[in-house]
Amino acid sequence: MEKEELFETVATLLVSGGYQQLRAVLAELEPFDLAEICEQLNESHLPLVFRLMTKDKAAECFTNMDSDLQELLIKRMSDAELKAFLDELFVDDTVDIIEEMPANVAARMLANSDPETREQINRILRYPKDSAGSIMTTEYVRLNKNMSVADAFARIRRVGYEKETIYTCYVTESDRTLVGVVTAMDLMLAETDTLISDLMETNVISAKTDDEQSSVVKKFSDYGFLALPVVDGSNRLVGIVTVDDAIDVALEEATEDVEMMAGITPTDKPYLKTGVVSTWLSRVPWLMLLMLSATLTGAIISQYEEALSHLVILTSFIPMLMGTAGNAGGQSSVTIIRALSLGDVVPGDILRILWKEARVSFLCGVSLAVVGYFKAILLDGADSLVALVVCITLLATVVAAKLVGCCFPVLIKKIGFDPAVVASPFITTVIDALALVVYFAVATALIPTL
Amino acid sequence: MEKEELFETVATLLVSGGYQQLRAVLAELEPFDLAEICEQLNESHLPLVFRLMTKDKAAECFTNMDSDLQELLIKRMSDAELKAFLDELFVDDTVDIIEEMPANVAARMLANSDPETREQINRILRYPKDSAGSIMTTEYVRLNKNMSVADAFARIRRVGYEKETIYTCYVTESDRTLVGVVTAMDLMLAETDTLISDLMETNVISAKTDDEQSSVVKKFSDYGFLALPVVDGSNRLVGIVTVDDAIDVALEEATEDVEMMAGITPTDKPYLKTGVVSTWLSRVPWLMLLMLSATLTGAIISQYEEALSHLVILTSFIPMLMGTAGNAGGQSSVTIIRALSLGDVVPGDILRILWKEARVSFLCGVSLAVVGYFKAILLDGADSLVALVVCITLLATVVAAKLVGCCFPVLIKKIGFDPAVVASPFITTVIDALALVVYFAVATALIPTL
Repeated sequence: MEKEELFETVATLLVSGGYQQLRAVLAELEPFDLAEICEQLNESHLPLVFRLMTKDKAAECFTNMDSDLQELLIKRMSDAELKAFLDELFVDDTVDIIEEMPANVAARMLANSDPETREQINRILRYPKDSAGSIMTTEYVRLNKNMSVADAFARIRRVGYEKETIYTCYVTESDRTLVGVVTAMDLMLAETDTLISDLMETNVISAKTDDEQSSVVKKFSDYGFLALPVVDGSNRLVGIVTVDDAIDVALEEATEDVEMMAGITPTDKPYLKTGVVSTWLSRVPWLMLLMLSATLTGAIISQYEEALSHLVILTSFIPMLMGTAGNAGGQSSVTIIRALSLGDVVPGDILRILWKEARVSFLCGVSLAVVGYFKAILLDGADSLVALVVCITLLATVVAAKLVGCCFPVLIKKIGFDPAVVASPFITTVIDALALVVYFAVATALIPTL
Repeated sequence: MEKEELFETVATLLVSGGYQQLRAVLAELEPFDLAEICEQLNESHLPLVFRLMTKDKAAECFTNMDSDLQELLIKRMSDAELKAFLDELFVDDTVDIIEEMPANVAARMLANSDPETREQINRILRYPKDSAGSIMTTEYVRLNKNMSVADAFARIRRVGYEKETIYTCYVTESDRTLVGVVTAMDLMLAETDTLISDLMETNVISAKTDDEQSSVVKKFSDYGFLALPVVDGSNRLVGIVTVDDAIDVALEEATEDVEMMAGITPTDKPYLKTGVVSTWLSRVPWLMLLMLSATLTGAIISQYEEALSHLVILTSFIPMLMGTAGNAGGQSSVTIIRALSLGDVVPGDILRILWKEARVSFLCGVSLAVVGYFKAILLDGADSLVALVVCITLLATVVAAKLVGCCFPVLIKKIGFDPAVVASPFITTVIDALALVVYFAVATALIPTL
């Protein structure tokens, strides 16, 4: 059944009062689809539809909703309802929701969580925004190495329904020191009296609570895990990150990188759900900054007003030279920013990066200079002296632009900032100025009349 | 133990001949780390180290290696060794490897696969490069709805070691029509005599073989699955995509988007492993194309040579105006490209997108125009008439640039191409020309002496 049809069915059943049938329809659906349907419903119908879902589906559906809708639903719940509802949510999802709520709603949610959960929520909320700790959940299966496989199954069955993943179980000492990992597959394929200590893998790959989220994603990609344990400074297990969160983080981080490269302050919300004013606010500061920094290029041109008025054809090459230098530098900076964020290169590789970019930029520069020379003469009607100036400028600026483009992100990363912040448009301003300076220097050196 | 230490240990044991100890060290390591160690080894040691690994670890380590190293190892294997080795590989990994091998090695790999696997490999190889079919594996657990939970466990145990994932089992009719899905968690928590038909979820979310990979990633992100079934046109199960591949695809697609936005032909290889010539080839065509298209902006400026030589200060604003228009348009195009690729917007949303961008661009344009006016007078020493020209041009070009920037990707997507291909640098050329035309039109209209 298509989603629109489904929505029609739900709407019709709501009006006709066919609640039993509606309950059956809802029971068949995935939480993500339920959330989409809820977002289209009339607000007055929402609490009713929500009550017709099973408890765990309602909780999962809720985590997939818009924060506005979540707020509305929470406000309609009595304290008792909220308490029961929060028990169904996973701790990491509760944290995500609390982060989006206004202070009074967040406080009410915390007040209605049971004390142990509240403490876990508060701990996760304290981790920095982009850290492994902030996306972990504290719900996982913890085993003891002296258990048998049968004991392990008994524990999984007992806690199973409440845990976000039971497919990877962690073996800890009594002080929670992480000593091993056992998968559900290992358990299913083993004899029931095997000891966990004989079954467990002791070389456990883990993340630290303050590791960057991108390094967590890289571990999932490298090792193909379904869950990654998160430990504190003394190797004590404090939580796990599950693979579904890793995918979301991978997509979000890529979007953030792309947005920052284009001079946009990243937002969490999907495009059509962001308001006009917040989109404006995420874009205008960068445009303003870049416009003001273009004062530099303007000033350089003003300095050469005299020369330009003698030989106006020089002006017509300015956009092409600045554009080419900007594109060349952008290619290098974007490549390096992405490679840094995937962990393909680290700041220590700077010399290898420079050596590679030096050769690539030389090849690019020579190719462009040759084509640029003939283009200037044949297409733009320049004489051979002006064409030579263009040609030399192209080679010099492409090399300079690519070297600046590859160094900048590495330096920024080295001093601890996100390289994407300073990317394309920003580097472009530097490179634009560079291109102009080189152009006028070459022109005044080679053309005697200037 | 740190990776460098580990490598030292392995190297020392290789020289001293401590093979038993080496075997124990290797057995502890994750396949990804083994592959990193292999890549640093002397080539002559490689086959020996490879033989000291357990069969399944060797296979997994192999899939994590560089294709050059894979080729070298395959060439050193006898046909019998290759045959045994291929049996250990998962079908989707074999396909990935074959795609990177030269024709003769690929043919030898196919010839040494067993006939059934060979047929599966050939089928997957025929799916288009970016389709769900091309990343699926044909190894999964298929159940019958009349089985009991005990039967299901027996089947999982029998086939378990050979399947990439056993945590999601698919229920099919005898003609392979997909009718349900059961998770290992369901099975573990159920009584052993429960029938699969009573346990299975019948609302199965699946992908079609020719679905785009980005839509597969979106399903993993939306629904939080560990595996997604892939069906043909008649809803017959032909394979599954596992979550580890979905993460890799998410990272690769994001990198491709970023590269295309920066005018780089995407490559599969990590930055430092790509040769200088192939990096040059991936970059120079775009630079060339953009340089040649800048002929347009040059031609526009040439047309106004006369006017510019009368009032050279106009020239000094060209870089700022073109840059601001380019940045404004880039913000919109990049946002829409990313939203299209995440599935946040579809081409049908074009009117909503236009309406939103119209309002945002007006706000941005007005803000920049006001600041630009005073900047021109106070910082750049322009008179109020020139400042007014700059100010009007800013407003008009920012609005035009953002509208072009948001429409272009949607149109390109609509006619079936990848919107990222035409992104930032390309749109920038169009917008540059637009900015100049508007600038000179406003200038000649308002300044009587031109």
